[in-house]
Amino acid sequence: MSLRSLLLLLVFVAAAHRGLADDGYRLWLKYDPITDVAQRNAYRQAAQYIAADGSSIVLKTAAKELQRGLQGLLGQPVPVVAKVESGSTKRGILLIVSPTANVSVTGHSQDGYRILAQGRNLVVTGRSGAGVLYGVFALLRELQTGQPVSNLAQASSPRIQYRLLNHWDNPNGTVERGYAGSSIWKWYELPNNLDPRYTDYARANASIGINGVAINNVNASARYLTPEYLQKVKALAGVFRPYGIRVYLSVFWAAPKVIGGLKTSDPLDPQVKQWWAAKTEEIYKVIPDFGGFLVKANSEGEPGPQDYGRNHADGANMLADALGQHDGIVMWRAFVYKANSNGDRFKEAYEEFKPLDGKFLPKVLVQVKNGPIDFQAREPFHPLFGAMPKTPLVLEVQITQEYLGFATHLVYLAPLFKECLDSDTQTKGPGSMVAKVVDGSLDQHRISGIAGVANIGSDRNWTGHPMGQANWYAFGRLAWDYHLTSAAIATEWAKMTLTREPKAVATIVDMMDKSRDIYVRYTTPLGLHHIMGESIHYGPQPWLAKAGRPDWTAVYYHKADSLGLGFNRTATGSNALALYSPGVQKQWGDPKTCPLNYLLWFHHVGWKQPLPTGRTLWNELVTRYYTGADSVTWMQQRWASVKPAVDPAVHADVTARLQIQRQEALWWRDACVLYFQTYSRQPIPAPFAPPTRTLAEVKSLVDLYQLK
Amino acid sequence: MSLRSLLLLLVFVAAAHRGLADDGYRLWLKYDPITDVAQRNAYRQAAQYIAADGSSIVLKTAAKELQRGLQGLLGQPVPVVAKVESGSTKRGILLIVSPTANVSVTGHSQDGYRILAQGRNLVVTGRSGAGVLYGVFALLRELQTGQPVSNLAQASSPRIQYRLLNHWDNPNGTVERGYAGSSIWKWYELPNNLDPRYTDYARANASIGINGVAINNVNASARYLTPEYLQKVKALAGVFRPYGIRVYLSVFWAAPKVIGGLKTSDPLDPQVKQWWAAKTEEIYKVIPDFGGFLVKANSEGEPGPQDYGRNHADGANMLADALGQHDGIVMWRAFVYKANSNGDRFKEAYEEFKPLDGKFLPKVLVQVKNGPIDFQAREPFHPLFGAMPKTPLVLEVQITQEYLGFATHLVYLAPLFKECLDSDTQTKGPGSMVAKVVDGSLDQHRISGIAGVANIGSDRNWTGHPMGQANWYAFGRLAWDYHLTSAAIATEWAKMTLTREPKAVATIVDMMDKSRDIYVRYTTPLGLHHIMGESIHYGPQPWLAKAGRPDWTAVYYHKADSLGLGFNRTATGSNALALYSPGVQKQWGDPKTCPLNYLLWFHHVGWKQPLPTGRTLWNELVTRYYTGADSVTWMQQRWASVKPAVDPAVHADVTARLQIQRQEALWWRDACVLYFQTYSRQPIPAPFAPPTRTLAEVKSLVDLYQLK
Repeated sequence: MSLRSLLLLLVFVAAAHRGLADDGYRLWLKYDPITDVAQRNAYRQAAQYIAADGSSIVLKTAAKELQRGLQGLLGQPVPVVAKVESGSTKRGILLIVSPTANVSVTGHSQDGYRILAQGRNLVVTGRSGAGVLYGVFALLRELQTGQPVSNLAQASSPRIQYRLLNHWDNPNGTVERGYAGSSIWKWYELPNNLDPRYTDYARANASIGINGVAINNVNASARYLTPEYLQKVKALAGVFRPYGIRVYLSVFWAAPKVIGGLKTSDPLDPQVKQWWAAKTEEIYKVIPDFGGFLVKANSEGEPGPQDYGRNHADGANMLADALGQHDGIVMWRAFVYKANSNGDRFKEAYEEFKPLDGKFLPKVLVQVKNGPIDFQAREPFHPLFGAMPKTPLVLEVQITQEYLGFATHLVYLAPLFKECLDSDTQTKGPGSMVAKVVDGSLDQHRISGIAGVANIGSDRNWTGHPMGQANWYAFGRLAWDYHLTSAAIATEWAKMTLTREPKAVATIVDMMDKSRDIYVRYTTPLGLHHIMGESIHYGPQPWLAKAGRPDWTAVYYHKADSLGLGFNRTATGSNALALYSPGVQKQWGDPKTCPLNYLLWFHHVGWKQPLPTGRTLWNELVTRYYTGADSVTWMQQRWASVKPAVDPAVHADVTARLQIQRQEALWWRDACVLYFQTYSRQPIPAPFAPPTRTLAEVKSLVDLYQLK
Repeated sequence: MSLRSLLLLLVFVAAAHRGLADDGYRLWLKYDPITDVAQRNAYRQAAQYIAADGSSIVLKTAAKELQRGLQGLLGQPVPVVAKVESGSTKRGILLIVSPTANVSVTGHSQDGYRILAQGRNLVVTGRSGAGVLYGVFALLRELQTGQPVSNLAQASSPRIQYRLLNHWDNPNGTVERGYAGSSIWKWYELPNNLDPRYTDYARANASIGINGVAINNVNASARYLTPEYLQKVKALAGVFRPYGIRVYLSVFWAAPKVIGGLKTSDPLDPQVKQWWAAKTEEIYKVIPDFGGFLVKANSEGEPGPQDYGRNHADGANMLADALGQHDGIVMWRAFVYKANSNGDRFKEAYEEFKPLDGKFLPKVLVQVKNGPIDFQAREPFHPLFGAMPKTPLVLEVQITQEYLGFATHLVYLAPLFKECLDSDTQTKGPGSMVAKVVDGSLDQHRISGIAGVANIGSDRNWTGHPMGQANWYAFGRLAWDYHLTSAAIATEWAKMTLTREPKAVATIVDMMDKSRDIYVRYTTPLGLHHIMGESIHYGPQPWLAKAGRPDWTAVYYHKADSLGLGFNRTATGSNALALYSPGVQKQWGDPKTCPLNYLLWFHHVGWKQPLPTGRTLWNELVTRYYTGADSVTWMQQRWASVKPAVDPAVHADVTARLQIQRQEALWWRDACVLYFQTYSRQPIPAPFAPPTRTLAEVKSLVDLYQLK
């Protein structure tokens, strides 16, 4: 073949290749060739072969993933050798599983790894195949983000043991609160047809340390416990196993009746116990490394043990008994609130669960949402954290943006997750952070867990909004190590996913890190909450006064009247504040010391009350709505400035979504200031121009999303 | 750059390219390089440039599409030139729009094209830009399927004017009866964000002659008529326009009440008329080439003119009036059947619509499903065809496999579509085929239409089952020319999509062409119908005896008893047969001359009644169930034999789905023979072995799909 024809061929192959815009499918595992020649050569020198010592199936995955990553980054194949030839002068990467590996002493060392430059080689060691796999992804991350590797010496173990995604995916392929297409699980095609996407999903999870997946909605179908569906679940478990990921099932409490043919689902009924024990045995025969059960019971219409006069502990312990000697757990959700309650929904989970502390068997963890209501853009930490020292608590956060603008608003969630993790419950004195409750260190629990409700769907780019990928990534990284900063995680992610151009990275990270606060400002500033569109949970609807239940309205929460705004949860009100430790009560109980971010969560504040900012409540509220909406314009400008550094398709996609976000920020702003103005009877303060549309006009816009 | 480094680079780029398995996204427009060197060179000789004469936006698309196709197939760029240099000796392809172009005289010449080798050049002429675009895709098809082009001379015009896809897509992103992920329309992101997929969708449609799209479910939301959603629709229309595709909307009859604030939706109310007229004006201001309205009214709970004592013509005519001078149409669906009817659902559409023949305004077409019930695997043609000579009738077929095994069963639907089109209504003597009713030639209608309910979703390969793409393709090709054979269409599709290896193509086409008959055999042989799983419409449930309405059960339709099986629709029964012309009545009315495929549609036949096949009804029924299920094994073998010729990922995908199909064919077989055996009390005839499971076991399998 002549040079000329070769060149021509190359031009065409490259053109065909270029034609493929970045569609986001590869997430942060892109492995595009490193263009810095000196750096690439240094890495090439250091990675001339891969040697894997051990037979673990996960170790094999580690070698394969390392090979794949290196081939992409270095632009040349790197062989996996069974054994290093003696006397070889080549430099390589050794992967070693050793039960006594010297990994980080903090955290769960079984999953830990160490990466060390030793002599000619880089050595990745772990106490398990999974540990080495996490080490490999950590090493690849160093290369992807352009770090030197010659003197690498790092060791890390995860602080939390069970790091799970929760999929709210239904058997019909829909995803409850999913905004990225349909479920990625193809139930009609399983177990025969294994979509290659299942493997890519597992790769992505393993790369950020996620080691478990509850694959079905907590509003669960009984289907998954049938022999036929267990075969389908087994097929998925088979794909995930080589990546160190275990499968968990959400269970429908009435399954013994619905598919077992029993007359009851009473957890203390001997037949029911026997049914669950037999079912659990059946599951472990099919899936020997099954992770366990996730349960939503007696919550929002789901059946549960209370239907039989039993309590949550009776239910959870029955399932723990059914697990017997198997290495599985029960995650029992604390997200409960009674229908037509006259009290304060804020308090209900606490009131039901706090008395049960100490009543749960060792295999049970109680899964608590970050805040007391339901994944609002900002909530104070859930009062159960620190209040159940005898029970391991799983922290549940939402990665999918149910209340956070779906897939059209750019909201980077690491700051939200960290705000909760860093909150000091003070239940064992200052420093009793939620993170320490969750990782078990505060109360010396043997097991610990964290769960993120997935934002993953069948959209080509997995998450709808391209920047939503960062929330999946950040959840995994924080589950591993909550000491990482939001900005550090965003920097890693942006470098691997969007661009390696330093100024662009800094711009993007700045924008991401501020985005959640911006969202709060234009939707629910100063501690407003639950004023969004009915049932769809999109757009503003602060005027919602009638719904299926009082605690599904907006007025229940904001309590606007001619005097002021906010929910009085002090002793003169619902007294939900009393659920917190005295130190927290003291700070939050006084409107002067309560952080402004939580102010209206706990206080009914007069419209003209001056705040520490120097403005009255009304003026501060309006200021936040306006500056919040204007900050979206700032984000648009920031994003426009990185255009040369980002793939054009991705850039255009985010640009379009930011336009929508700007429009909808104005929609939120106008809806809320015009509505609350009907109570405050105050003008829009300078320098802000009053909305140019009427409240009625904004209301009709919102109605759109409620139309049949 | 040295030859060596070039070679290395090439290897890597090619490897990266090879790594991309065929994910089906490119459909039949793959344009992979032609590997036959002689053929490629011949094509390269003939296509050295493209010249487009005219300024139509669709003509520009034609040039662009031709360039794209040629670049892929020929492996070299082909320039588009403004004008051919005089004295040039190069050979090229000329695209010409000419109002007097000599296209095929049969059919709608405005969309027709001619391709002719003239002197050095190939000339593609059309009377419109769309005509040239269709000609370009026809030319590319010649190249894709390896036909010689040196003496090309062909002309073609579509027989049917309005060739539409109907999307049953909902505003929340779900698709009613969709089995390929979620809707491809991203309503929350429109109008700002234009998914590149919209363009690829338009390309695929234009390539098979589809010129209209009703983008939303006939169970319609009022949302689409709001100013906000019209902006979103406008954005889609803008993507489709350069491909000659117009947008249509399904309308919610109660829209004047729901979004117009009126007290009524009575079509004769002046305010209602005015509202629709104003709304239509508003639509045309936003979308000047808007196609018109599709209406499901007074059907399955949808509101309609009958709510006000008016009839379908009153409703349709009011909308036609609203369209005024705009170039739009009204497609009014005839799919109606009253709740709790004591009659025969078979007759209801006829009884409601036949008396209205002649009452509709010129812009109205009545849209009739292929058969009288609802998209069963086999139905006799709808008795309205031929019975409404004064009204243009749109034929509605279902491309999505609601009753045909979703996305797990391989069922090629061209034979089903053709069976209906080729049916002779005999209403104007022999030769009065449904096709001639539909294309308007039988009754000299000026307008004609055909609609296919789309099987398109967000799955990467668009249709879930890779072979489902062939059904989309076949619909378009038959809409253009119903004289094409099923096998010819399958051959085109397979060559463009799967392989060019002649023996493999023949094998695949054989399998496809028999697949629908195979499906009928293992599910509903001999004219059985509507015995599938309740509401989900998947799997067998012939024992279903109670449902929301009697005509939603299975027993209503099969009427099995100790004497025999089948629905007596002769004069001694419901007399639905009387709706057909005398010739049809005569043939179908006598069980001896009634085609076996329709037997149980019209006759209650004794279990021991001998059939023309020499077997009793019972033995024939069992034989068909068994041979049908075994034919899936035959399909598996056929598919296995083409493995070397087909992309490995696609081959594995179809292989896995065939495994499921085989299991479910056995499930259907066992369910039906065991259930009907409880009435026939006859043994399974030799050589077939009785099912090894009990009816109760099969029933519990079916229950799975009905579980919460």
